[in-house]
This record gives sequence, C-alpha cells and structure tokens, in this order.
Amino acid sequence: MSEPTLHDRSTSASLCARLFDALDAMWLVDPHSHINPLAPASTTLDDILGYNYYTELAHAAGLPREAIADPALSPKQRVGLLVESLGQIDNTIQVHWLIELSQRFFGFADTQLRPDNWDALYDRSAAQMANPGWAAHVLKTSKLEAVFLTNDFDDTLTGFDTKLYIPCLRTDELVFHLGRGHVRDRLVNATGTTLGDAASLRVALGQLFEHFVQHGARACAISLPPSFSPRKVSLAAADEALTKVFLQAGKAPAEQRDTLSCYVFWTLAELCAEYHLPFDLMIGVNRAVYPGGVHQGQDLFDSRVSLIQYADLFNSFPQVMFPVSVLASVTNQELASYAWIFPNVIAHGHWWYSNIPSLIEHDAANRLEAVPANKQIGYYSDMYKLEFALPKFAMYKRVLARILAERFVIGRGWNEERAVALGHQVLRGNVDRVFGLT
Amino acid sequence: MSEPTLHDRSTSASLCARLFDALDAMWLVDPHSHINPLAPASTTLDDILGYNYYTELAHAAGLPREAIADPALSPKQRVGLLVESLGQIDNTIQVHWLIELSQRFFGFADTQLRPDNWDALYDRSAAQMANPGWAAHVLKTSKLEAVFLTNDFDDTLTGFDTKLYIPCLRTDELVFHLGRGHVRDRLVNATGTTLGDAASLRVALGQLFEHFVQHGARACAISLPPSFSPRKVSLAAADEALTKVFLQAGKAPAEQRDTLSCYVFWTLAELCAEYHLPFDLMIGVNRAVYPGGVHQGQDLFDSRVSLIQYADLFNSFPQVMFPVSVLASVTNQELASYAWIFPNVIAHGHWWYSNIPSLIEHDAANRLEAVPANKQIGYYSDMYKLEFALPKFAMYKRVLARILAERFVIGRGWNEERAVALGHQVLRGNVDRVFGLT
Amino acid sequence: MSEPTLHDRSTSASLCARLFDALDAMWLVDPHSHINPLAPASTTLDDILGYNYYTELAHAAGLPREAIADPALSPKQRVGLLVESLGQIDNTIQVHWLIELSQRFFGFADTQLRPDNWDALYDRSAAQMANPGWAAHVLKTSKLEAVFLTNDFDDTLTGFDTKLYIPCLRTDELVFHLGRGHVRDRLVNATGTTLGDAASLRVALGQLFEHFVQHGARACAISLPPSFSPRKVSLAAADEALTKVFLQAGKAPAEQRDTLSCYVFWTLAELCAEYHLPFDLMIGVNRAVYPGGVHQGQDLFDSRVSLIQYADLFNSFPQVMFPVSVLASVTNQELASYAWIFPNVIAHGHWWYSNIPSLIEHDAANRLEAVPANKQIGYYSDMYKLEFALPKFAMYKRVLARILAERFVIGRGWNEERAVALGHQVLRGNVDRVFGLT
Repeated sequence: MSEPTLHDRSTSASLCARLFDALDAMWLVDPHSHINPLAPASTTLDDILGYNYYTELAHAAGLPREAIADPALSPKQRVGLLVESLGQIDNTIQVHWLIELSQRFFGFADTQLRPDNWDALYDRSAAQMANPGWAAHVLKTSKLEAVFLTNDFDDTLTGFDTKLYIPCLRTDELVFHLGRGHVRDRLVNATGTTLGDAASLRVALGQLFEHFVQHGARACAISLPPSFSPRKVSLAAADEALTKVFLQAGKAPAEQRDTLSCYVFWTLAELCAEYHLPFDLMIGVNRAVYPGGVHQGQDLFDSRVSLIQYADLFNSFPQVMFPVSVLASVTNQELASYAWIFPNVIAHGHWWYSNIPSLIEHDAANRLEAVPANKQIGYYSDMYKLEFALPKFAMYKRVLARILAERFVIGRGWNEERAVALGHQVLRGNVDRVFGLT
Repeated sequence: MSEPTLHDRSTSASLCARLFDALDAMWLVDPHSHINPLAPASTTLDDILGYNYYTELAHAAGLPREAIADPALSPKQRVGLLVESLGQIDNTIQVHWLIELSQRFFGFADTQLRPDNWDALYDRSAAQMANPGWAAHVLKTSKLEAVFLTNDFDDTLTGFDTKLYIPCLRTDELVFHLGRGHVRDRLVNATGTTLGDAASLRVALGQLFEHFVQHGARACAISLPPSFSPRKVSLAAADEALTKVFLQAGKAPAEQRDTLSCYVFWTLAELCAEYHLPFDLMIGVNRAVYPGGVHQGQDLFDSRVSLIQYADLFNSFPQVMFPVSVLASVTNQELASYAWIFPNVIAHGHWWYSNIPSLIEHDAANRLEAVPANKQIGYYSDMYKLEFALPKFAMYKRVLARILAERFVIGRGWNEERAVALGHQVLRGNVDRVFGLT
Repeated sequence: MSEPTLHDRSTSASLCARLFDALDAMWLVDPHSHINPLAPASTTLDDILGYNYYTELAHAAGLPREAIADPALSPKQRVGLLVESLGQIDNTIQVHWLIELSQRFFGFADTQLRPDNWDALYDRSAAQMANPGWAAHVLKTSKLEAVFLTNDFDDTLTGFDTKLYIPCLRTDELVFHLGRGHVRDRLVNATGTTLGDAASLRVALGQLFEHFVQHGARACAISLPPSFSPRKVSLAAADEALTKVFLQAGKAPAEQRDTLSCYVFWTLAELCAEYHLPFDLMIGVNRAVYPGGVHQGQDLFDSRVSLIQYADLFNSFPQVMFPVSVLASVTNQELASYAWIFPNVIAHGHWWYSNIPSLIEHDAANRLEAVPANKQIGYYSDMYKLEFALPKFAMYKRVLARILAERFVIGRGWNEERAVALGHQVLRGNVDRVFGLT
C-alpha cells in the first residue's frame, strides 16, 4: 500500500503556520511562574534584562559579576552595560525572547539590541510601562487569563486578586532549610505554632495549607536535588532528627538532615491529599554549583537521577496529582513513561535548562506520542515578569505546531481540527483539570 | 564545491513513499514476540484491546484497574468500557496501531474508535476472526514468514509448526526466581533432575537447552533489571548461594540471591555457546514499580544503567551472539557503540518504552550511521497477538524510510536500490544470519 | 499574528547549500588532532584504512583481529583485506569519510570501494601521495591554516613548524600511569628531575610546561574515565600516595592511586593557570573495555558521568579555560548548561562516539540555542592523518548549515550573513580566541 503523503514536508510550512495561529488564538493559564503579584510587570528594561538568563549568560560570556551587580549603576546604566554583551549571546533563544517581546510590546523595529539602538528603546518602553494599565495590557496581549505564583510559605497572600494571580505554596525552605533559625522563626511567626517536635511541626505545616487554601492556592510546589529520594519516616525518627537539626543546624549529620527533609516532604504530600492540592515536583537541580555566579545563576544539575526515587511516593499517594518537571532532557523519557503508567503522574512543562526549542522538540514529541492526552501539561513560563509569557509560550507553540503538523496531520492523517484540539488540551484544558480551575 | 541537493527535503515526500513501498514489499521474520502458537491471532476486539498498552494507558488516563479487570464483564462489555477511554489516549502511537490494524484487517473506515462506532466493528471483526484461516490470513497480509516466540522454560513445544513459530527459551524465572518453590518444581518436572547443588542445576539447564534445540529453538532470551551486573561465580560460591536461596527463598540475603542469579545467568551463556544459540538480552526493566497497575502495566525503568555492566560477559563469550535491547533511549548510544566495537554485540530492535516513532528516529539514525550493517536488527514486534505485527512494523518502516531518504539518498547521494538493500539487511537479512535461519 | 514563513522547509535546500558554501570557504584551524608532524599525511591507502575506525568496524563486522594485524601482510595486501569488509560497514559515516576523501583527493569516481575497484585507487593514490608537496596540498585543499597536535610529554617538539603544527601537552600518562616505571623514567629523562616526592614531581611537571610553552604549545589536554572526580590533595597526602604508587605500581591501593592522580591533575591545572594554557578535558572514556579488540579499538564508555564531578575544578581555576569534550551525547546537555553558566567552560567539538551526524545535530542545536556564541568551539578532527580533516569538517559543516538554515534563518528570521557569522565564530573565531592564536 503506497503512502503518497506520508512524509510530505513540502507543504508543511503553511500548515504549521495555520496550526500556530490556531494555538495562538487560545486564552491560557500559566501554571507556574515567579510573578510578584504586587509588581507583576516590568517598569524598565532593567527589570527585563535583569532576568537571570541575561545576567548569567552575559557573565558566562565574559562580563564580571561585580560589574553586573555594581550598586552604583542606575537601571539604565546596567541595561547599557548588559547590551554590550548581547552580541556574544544573541544566538541564544533567551535573547530571542527579548527581541520578540521588544517587538511585540514596545514596537522595536530592529532584530538585534545593540549599543547603538538600545537607548531609544529604553526610554520608549519605560514610558509605556509607566502606564497604569500596563500589566493588564500585557496580560491581554499575551492572552493570559491567570498566572500561578510561587509564594513563600509565610506570604500573607493579600493585596491582589487570587483568581488572576493564583497562589502556590513553595516548600523548598521547609523541606531543606529548617536547620536555619530564621526559617524556623518565619514558620513560627506565620503559624503561631511552637516547633517542639515532629507532631507540632506537622500542625504548623497544616496551618500553612489552611492559610493557602483559604486564599485560593491551587498547588504546592518544590524543587528537588538529584540526590533526594523521599521516604516515609516514623514519628520517633523524625523527632530525633528534628532535635538534632534544630540544635546543630547545618552541622547536624547528613543522615539526620535527610530524615527531617523526608519527614517534612512526606507530611506535605499527606497535606496535599488532605487539602486536594496537586504537588508540583521539579526534580534535578543542584544549588550553588557555581557560587561565583550572578544572582540566580549559580545552579546546575547532575543528570544521573531517576524517577524510581519517587516510586514509593507515587504509590503511597494515589489521590494526589504530581505534575512533574525534570531538569534534564535525558530524564524526559522516564517522565513520559511514568506518566504513561501512573494515573497520578503528570508530565509538566519544559523546565529551565530543558526550555530550549531543540530539546522541547525531542521531549514534547515523546510525550505527545506516548502519554495520554490528559496526562501532560504542555508549558509554563517560569517567568519573573509578565512580559516574558508571550515570547516563551510562542516558542513552545511553534514547536508544538510543528510536531502536530509533521507527526499528526501529515504523519497520521489527522485533520487540523483534531490536531488543534490536542494542542488546546495540553496547553489549556489539562491546566484547568489538574489544578481544579473552573 | 557547491552542494545543490544536499539538504533537499522538498522532494523527499515521494522518495520516502517509494522507499516505504519497497521496504513494505519484503517478507519478514519477526525475531521477538509473545505469540501463543496455539492461539496466535485474536478472536475478538477484546483480545486486541486487552493488550496491556491499552489497559495501562486507559488506567493512567483515569480508568480504575478494578473496572478493567472486573470478571463480570463480557469481552464485548470490556471493549465498550475501554473505548470510552480512547478519547484520552488516541494521541498515542499505540492507539494509532489499533486504528491502522482495524482499517487494514477489518475494513474500519473511520479514523477514531468511539462509543458510537465500536459496536459494528466489534461484530464485524469477530466474524472475520472466526474464519478458520484467520491467523494464516493475518500472517500473509503482514508478509510474515515466521515469528519468534517467548517460551516458558517448561513449555513442551508441541502442537505447532516450529518453523513458523520459532521457539525461544525465556529464562527470567530461572535467573531471578529459583527461590520460588513452584519455579523449582516446574524445573524438576521439566527435566527430571533433582536440584541438589550447582552442578545438578547446570545439568537441568542443559536439559532445557537440549529440549529447546531439539524443537527448533533459535534463541535464549531474558529481560534484566538495571541493577544486574553478570559475573562468573565459582561452583563453591554457587553451591552456598543455592542452598541459602532454596532454603530461605526471598528471605535469603540479597548477596546470595545475586550470586545464584549470576551463576544461572553465566551458565546460560555457557550453554548458548555450547548449543550455538544467540542470547537475547533485554536490559533495563524494573518490575512492579507500580503494583497498583493493571496486569503487565506495572513495570518501569531506571535509566541509570550502562553496558559496561556486561563487558565481562561480552569478553568471556566471543562465540555467542548477544542481540541486545535497551529499554531507555538514553542507553542507545552505548548500545550502538558497543555493537560498533564488539563483534558479538547486535543492536536489537526498539523495545517497549522506546518503541515510539520520535525515539526510534533518534536511535535508529545513530545505529545506521555508526554500526556495521550486519550488526543491527531493525525491529521486532513484541506482540501478543498477530494482528499487531502489521501496524508496528509499518511504524518502524516509515521511520526507516525517512532516515534512508534524508540521510542516505539525499544526504549521501546513495541510489535508492542501495538504500533499500540496507533496509532489507536490517529488517530481514540480519535476522536470518544472526539466528541461523536458512 | 500569523507566521507565514515560520517552518518553511520547502525552500531550505538551496539555503542550506548557500550556507554550506559560505562555511566551506573559510580557512580553519583544527584545534585537536593526533597528527605526527614529521609524517602528517598518508603515503598509501593503508595509512588511511589503518585508521582505527576502519579496523575496529571491520573487526566488529566479523574480520578477525589476527588477520588485520598479520605482520606478514604488505600495506597493499592489508588494504585488500579490509576492502572485503567494507560492504558490511559502508553504511557508516566513517566509510563515507573514506569515499569523500578518495573522491576529493584521488579522483575516485565511484561511490563505493569494492574488491573490484580498490586496486587502481591504491596505485593512483600512492603515486599522488609520493609527491613531496602532498601534505601542503592536502592542507591547502582542506583550507587548514594550522593543526593542533597531541604530544607525548617527553616530545622534543623539534623538526617541524610549530606555527603550522601547534604542540599540545597530552597528560594522560602523567595523571594515570606514573605507577609505571617506564613512564617515570621518561619523565626523569625529559626533565632531569629526580622524582622523590610530590614537590619534586611538581617541579618536573613545571619543566614540561616550560618546555612546551617555549615550543609554542597552546594547550594542555587529557582524556578522563567516567569515574574520575578531581579534587585538591594536600602535599602530605600526595607524598604518601606517591611513595606507595612508586613502590607498588599497579598493586598500590586504588585510593592511593586516585590520590596521586588527583595531585598530578590538580597540579596540571595550576600550571595551566601559571602558563596561560587552556586545559582540554575529554571526559568519559573507559580504556580497554574490549581487550580483544584491534589497536585503538578497545575503548568504550559508561554514560553515567556528570560534570558535577568537575565543579570544584571549574570553581578553583576561574583563570583557566577548560574546553570540554564529552564522549556521550547524553552528557551534552550538561556540557551546554555548564558552558552557559561557568565563564571558563567551553563546549568543545563532537568527540569520537558522538562524532556522528545524527548526534551532532542534536548536540550542536542545543549548544547553538543555549550557549553564548563565544563559549563553543564547533569542531575538531581528532585525525591521525591530514586527509581526514576535509571529510570530517565537511560532515560538521553540513550539519551546521542545516541548523543555521532551519533554526536561525527560517526559524528566527536571521539574514544569511548573520547566520554565516555565527558559523564562522564557532568554527574559527573561538579557536583563535580560546587558544590565544593571533
């Protein structure tokens, strides 16, 4: 049986464009960001170029950290400084985001940001961003209905619309840094609970959940080092570990620190079950691998990690949804396979070092071909400022459009409506369903 | 020197189609399946939808295991139940196999199997499958000359044509589960040998080989967990381990169980040498990672495995061919490289979680560009029912046609005959040579 | 906003060809090879087919090692022998190099080297290679301005033009084999230093650097097993380890051997800082995995390696540039990410088992999209004879042209000049900058 149209890529350009346009017409919810809801949008280009992607790339390309962080620099001066390094990093997709957002939001007409053309952009964009409706304009232009936050556990969650900026309880400090007195102090202050033992710690954690859920939180989240392997810990072991860690802080034996981390983590999972919150796991980051790096540009990873480390967790909490992100593309096939088998594992976005078109292509194709359509959330922005959603989601949608075109419409003979529906489900439908939005 | 046609993908659609047609015209031997030779084809759609791919994907997408396994369901009712879940999984390539085989074998005219159209297909297909020549029809339509089986070690291997359904001695239970009394009992019954010590165990294993070879077996096979690292074990150590494992079963120390596993495994390799059987290694599976999963839908993997674990084995048995499958695509480059260096390592098929077009593309391209043409077997079906060979091999042939078109005909200027000859060698010629078919 | 040209691959063939031509017009410096500067080019086809790629592939395809290494064979006879195996390996990209160089240098008009056509090529090429200007002709045809060498630590570095053939201090033996008396003897002879303790060893190593730098060396280099994890060692610990290793050679405890290796390695890094030499790290090779293999065809790898093992090193020597090569494509994302964060980590070439078009495509796209343009060196030949630079670099340039065409010109709307400039930077500009050429 002949297959005349099977690999026909010659007509795929216009097909891709049509699919992209259809995907781009959808209103989205961004299921993970670092937006500050009290200052969601940028006020100058410095807010935008201050994104760690630009500072760390400029630093890696040769710009000293001290120059970037020089407190004597005005915002405009720092932008001028960073622009000098852009010539060495404008091959990166991150700078492409910068150009695309400058074109879309600020009418930038050029294709490169250079020492000879940034000044005008700086001033014009600052004027636009000063408009009181700027954040709303960015949200509308980006077709964003809502944005998930990443909230400190002691965030009051007040002063903003939690339907638009949806709280998410971030728990890294609770799991890994309770040995630090100021973290414990913040927990005590936030909950009014004295932390005497494992039981009282659980009470405090429960109060955080109560507070977050009352304020509309729709997820609990954490980033995890590659070495972490959660396990259930007895209350007695937790008590002993807690005592040692609280008394000795970072000098407590590694085993005790790990035991306390596991106790807190497992308790969080129990509370996710109790409060019906998905538990976002972001697996694989090693913190401060390069301590000489710029702010937020010091973390890397060890790709020797396996989801088998989380098998007990997934088995123990069938009632909890775990949207899982992996830092390394080489872990993606495990993620796709675990989501294909475990009802409570969701393949979630393309995180950080894997948030690159060539890697997204590889990883998303695997997921779309092997994971149930309702078990994958295509993308989140991970942004700190609203202006980044548009170019980041656009990057993903371009890759998604090409996969749908080549592998589904051309490769399997799907009609375009069906392909767009699959795209809608992974871009939007599953966000609503997994996080219980309505 | 200009290269005008180098990357010309614009004319590749018709080229791919011609190459696919040429590959699709070949009669094949399927070098690995789980066919029951006494019931090789399906009798209802329930046999087809009962394939663990569909039950596990439907379960992962939300269908309770209890519903799927409900003994009160008739075959037709279970199909009806599973069809309701197809809408959430029909993006998967597995459901594409289902649609393609339904179209090719049962005249299904639609592109999706839905609650409103499955009933007619069920009845029509059941009528066709009731035809006494059905299995032969499927084999002929699929252009299959022979199919390798996966036989329990105590299979009598009688009642079927072993030239058509070629026996293969599957040895997982012997290597990993001799601690179970019923496995030992079956071995005693099959061989009439008393298992008193390592030497008598070797005699029993030799009798299995004798039996299998006399009945036309052409391979010994095993699937292996990522942690397994075979080594030669002394007879004394094997004796001690055997005693402990037989007496204490699963409670024997892990070290003793591993020693016995290694002894059995190494003995199997010796017997493969003695009986001139290739030893299929399927490396990387963790069993029962999700014990709450459906039947055969509980296994996953840890991609942290290396073929270095098998270096001693490959070095110790130069006279044994090892067709090696790896579960994780990230192990594929090691496999390609080991097959490029070791004369007795064959890159074998695309297994299970790697049996996905986007991963096959990546893995097969690496092999075709770096492994000697006679050191790679392109594909096996791994099927339980004959109807699956056609869509699974078609999937592989589509990927193969595209690689041959883009990387060999366009990329290197090969003529189409040469590309098809390479395709024939990896699809068929090497199966004949490696497994000694004539 | 519609994207009419976004994925337009239909016009990419001629675009790729134009980009390739532009890249191919550049004069290059090859930053890593194994050229013998006293005999840089081949004298017969035996020199070419003696490259371990052909002998190891032919052996893996079935040719006994003893036949290949038979000392009774004349060069021409050995070529005749190897040609008989080419039919089984001419799918490999390595044989494609052979055909391309035969066409380009020797006027070979065929597309396959076969038993019926090699004889004439052998004789004609031998006549051409006998021309006294042959090496110069090859360099010119290949547009090579200079070629980095791999020099034994006791190389006199005399008798050749070190501007054309740039010395590089290779240090594997110093780091891993000082337990061998003949290696120590060579070090003593080369430096005139008695090796009594760690301090005197450091003096000897310093003398090697002095000698190499005086003779124009521009790099220090080493290949490293996946298990190696460098650390700073105290002088006392080094003294103790040195004593044990020198006295007990390979029988010294593994821990002591590792301590001495780390001491030497760390001292080399200190000397790289002192002498302003980049330190090429080639990470991931396991030596002699297949001891029955042909010469240089015995090494393989374990892909379970992480650059986290080198974090201390990168942090401790910010003033040293580390061009890093990884053996396994699955380590490429770590390399890209470390180069994106660490100012002193350079992603370097596509090494050995990863030097395959399908893997280069994957790895280079990741780098070009995520690593600063000045932090990546596209390619080196790793060749033993000059004739291989042309087809190897051509392979890379084809891949690079396609990535630039599809991901930058079409995907991001870059003009062709800008794409070619990026190609020039990774192919040539960064070699000049990183290695301090002028």
